Amino acid sequence: MNFCPNCAAPLERRIPDGDHLPRFVCPACGTTHYQNPKLVAGCVPEYEGRILLCRRAIEPRRGFWTIPAGFMENNETLQQAAARECHEEALARVEIGDPCAIVHVLHAHQVHVMFRARLSDPSYGVGVESLEVKMSAEQEVPWPDLAFQSVTFTLRRYFEDRAAGRSELHFKTIE
Amino acid sequence: MNFCPNCAAPLERRIPDGDHLPRFVCPACGTTHYQNPKLVAGCVPEYEGRILLCRRAIEPRRGFWTIPAGFMENNETLQQAAARECHEEALARVEIGDPCAIVHVLHAHQVHVMFRARLSDPSYGVGVESLEVKMSAEQEVPWPDLAFQSVTFTLRRYFEDRAAGRSELHFKTIE
Repeated sequence: MNFCPNCAAPLERRIPDGDHLPRFVCPACGTTHYQNPKLVAGCVPEYEGRILLCRRAIEPRRGFWTIPAGFMENNETLQQAAARECHEEALARVEIGDPCAIVHVLHAHQVHVMFRARLSDPSYGVGVESLEVKMSAEQEVPWPDLAFQSVTFTLRRYFEDRAAGRSELHFKTIE
Repeated sequence: MNFCPNCAAPLERRIPDGDHLPRFVCPACGTTHYQNPKLVAGCVPEYEGRILLCRRAIEPRRGFWTIPAGFMENNETLQQAAARECHEEALARVEIGDPCAIVHVLHAHQVHVMFRARLSDPSYGVGVESLEVKMSAEQEVPWPDLAFQSVTFTLRRYFEDRAAGRSELHFKTIE
């Protein structure tokens, strides 16, 4: 962040009066520009015991496998964001269930919220952000080729909970 | 958002190729500037059956009552953010428990995540963003004078769950 989005003046980096962290502050119009973590919403879509996985067509981690997930937009709920991402990446309709994992990805300034979900019907396809989409049994999950630690954590907890007949919310922090 | 924070050129509002929503796009340097919901983290701090409430010294809703809550910063977890806000607003140390409510505040582009919490000891005070801080029994909560719908929702669910001996996560969307 170099220039004020409000008035185009060069920004300063300083701790505003009464604050405790350095911020981008505009010396011309006085606006303080805060930077905050972004929300990523995703889901584990299940149908008859198998889960839907997508191989990423875009960076970061192109070619690696993920559950459908992406940045939450304004004017939608986390559940709507998770369902939208599943439709965009895998052309699949899901009913979003309860949350399975909340993962703080500190270095990326992101919070990932991953839900359990049910595919409404077994139809799916390859969205523009995917190279390949498949339904995978637990023993077929390509663990070494998963794209993100948050996905690995979510799927481990998902299968553990499913085997134990429970449905919990798990937190994790990735430094 | 008027000018590019990257290069100071005037921004355009248009749907980028391959996207589906209008974004702020810089015609000079090509950067797309996304706008996403912000996370607010808070908690219901309890000590010997009473909960801690703060009367706001700042806008919006100056003079109204709230649980400690505020915008999450980069490089912290939701639990750390909730505990930090409690210390800033009420000079109180808390142990954060499980989440009680996630509230989508659509018009404000915010997601509020509210946790159950225990005051580590009964000491508290009036932080710079508060006019007054008090410990309140359930029957003393100033319901008509609460600052935000997300706070009312959280406290209703909190007391209901406590009475029923359960500890659930509740979702709500405020249009």
